[in-house]
Amino acid sequence: MTTARQWRLVARPKGEPRPSDFELAEVEVPAPEDGQLLVRNLVMSVDPYMRGRMNDTRSYVPPYALGGPLDGGAVGEVVQSRAEGYAPGDVVLHGLGWRDYAVGPAKGFKVIDTDAAPAQAYLGVLGMPGLTAYAGLFAVAGMREGETVFVSGAAGAVGSLVGQLAKLRGATVVGSAGSAAKVEWLTRDLGLDAAFDYHAAPVAQQLEKAAPEGIDVYFDNVGGEHLEAAIGSLKVHGRAVICGMISQYNATEPSPAPRNLGMIVGKRLRIEGLLVRDHAGLQAEFVREVAPALAYGKIQVRETVVEGLENAPAAFLGLLRGENTGKMLVRIG
Amino acid sequence: MTTARQWRLVARPKGEPRPSDFELAEVEVPAPEDGQLLVRNLVMSVDPYMRGRMNDTRSYVPPYALGGPLDGGAVGEVVQSRAEGYAPGDVVLHGLGWRDYAVGPAKGFKVIDTDAAPAQAYLGVLGMPGLTAYAGLFAVAGMREGETVFVSGAAGAVGSLVGQLAKLRGATVVGSAGSAAKVEWLTRDLGLDAAFDYHAAPVAQQLEKAAPEGIDVYFDNVGGEHLEAAIGSLKVHGRAVICGMISQYNATEPSPAPRNLGMIVGKRLRIEGLLVRDHAGLQAEFVREVAPALAYGKIQVRETVVEGLENAPAAFLGLLRGENTGKMLVRIG
Repeated sequence: MTTARQWRLVARPKGEPRPSDFELAEVEVPAPEDGQLLVRNLVMSVDPYMRGRMNDTRSYVPPYALGGPLDGGAVGEVVQSRAEGYAPGDVVLHGLGWRDYAVGPAKGFKVIDTDAAPAQAYLGVLGMPGLTAYAGLFAVAGMREGETVFVSGAAGAVGSLVGQLAKLRGATVVGSAGSAAKVEWLTRDLGLDAAFDYHAAPVAQQLEKAAPEGIDVYFDNVGGEHLEAAIGSLKVHGRAVICGMISQYNATEPSPAPRNLGMIVGKRLRIEGLLVRDHAGLQAEFVREVAPALAYGKIQVRETVVEGLENAPAAFLGLLRGENTGKMLVRIG
Repeated sequence: MTTARQWRLVARPKGEPRPSDFELAEVEVPAPEDGQLLVRNLVMSVDPYMRGRMNDTRSYVPPYALGGPLDGGAVGEVVQSRAEGYAPGDVVLHGLGWRDYAVGPAKGFKVIDTDAAPAQAYLGVLGMPGLTAYAGLFAVAGMREGETVFVSGAAGAVGSLVGQLAKLRGATVVGSAGSAAKVEWLTRDLGLDAAFDYHAAPVAQQLEKAAPEGIDVYFDNVGGEHLEAAIGSLKVHGRAVICGMISQYNATEPSPAPRNLGMIVGKRLRIEGLLVRDHAGLQAEFVREVAPALAYGKIQVRETVVEGLENAPAAFLGLLRGENTGKMLVRIG
């Protein structure tokens, strides 16, 4: 038997989650059964969508059970294998994060190539956030060369890839982020055409200045004021991809924005929701385009790494407050 | 010279338009120049979109000029022709309504066949409202047989066609309207599967009862509470076509609904604006499907006809208040 630690949700957050909503439990990890693996986690992901799963509301993924372990993307090393095709030492991508040891059926674990890219890249640029950016920009929004793209949360895991992918395919790109340092990263290192700190002045005003002729595509990670400003700026036949609305996730009352939705008619806007699970078919095409770009430094990646499983809730809370630049990760191993 | 009457906009309405915002002027109509026609109007259309043109805001059509004549769809009879292909007595469809005589270049006038359908049908079922319904339902929403469609303003010019076209193509259809009499017309005469009076109880509650398993397509003519209820009811990958938001047109403050827009992500909803001008290419296909359906009584039409050009503003105000069933027209001739 192995003793493991796992984070549990012990209270459903009202508004911003509090440390007391989480509890670090010690559990005995059962030996893997036939067809199962025992994995020691090295790194886990915290993602904005997890906030929604902490509410007791029906959504696209079931809510976390109260008193039960949290889960999410993680990378670990196989300790013990009772499944064909997996050997101790293999590094695997899987969905049993928020714990230091994971046991489960082998089909939930995918061996990854850590020579091709560092392990944690499979939680970010080459993983779910990367495919989200790729699918949203190209499959949902149908972005074309020469268009102007606005991405909110542009220094986040998804947003920073949206901006760079759009640039690689010949768009003019404007990004918003939550600090001057992030803005500098976006324009100086990532090559965005313009970026602004959304705390500095109203979003609509800064967007108007950055893209005076309007935008063709809006990639929404933030919602609220950002979405309203984007609807105002979108040109005729513009498209908004709604990937997330992080500004709304801690709201305790339904949010009333945007107030200019009527513009959707005259400008024939299309506003469409995005979940990466619908776009698994793009995985091969995505890797073909992004892996070489990454290898040749055409795409740059930053990560914000919090040390220690015991700090996972703090990492998650920091993510919701925008304390990360690039992908927010927790190193466990 | 001919003396003619024309309605002018003399004040931009704040909120609900008032009779004093309009003025009926007498003008001398010039003789048609080479290439022009003089037309005596028989019937004119009032449409919800005209309310937007009374504001001094940039939109998809220029605003009406203050002190200038109003315009809009009309059918008239050629009195004098100085253009090839037009003869006195021809009945023509054109855009110079809100007046009893119109003069202009012949290319703005289209001869219509009043044997195939009554003249005013070209302002309704066979005209702009008909093509709007057809394009929105089939080209924008991509409605398929077996789906459930919800249409608001279902007893209006566009809405009553949306419901019937959806039924003809094998959908289950729910409609909302503003009176018990309209609801009865929708279910008893037009064959909708369910309909409700949106004044009787909250829209979300009545929609839930009428379509307990949710809807696939929402055709929006109303906005506000209706749109919020529809977003709540739409199934995964549901589509909302925004044709109009008549509940918002007289608003003096930006409207805060819908408050549940975040659902667009989890349900991967698509919300898209519709302007009929983008769909002129569907005109032939539309007439091929709708004209026979009309001839064989598979599509029923009601009109609300106000007598006399002097009552055109009253007809328009009545339209905004929902006093019409089917197309709202003003008989001039």
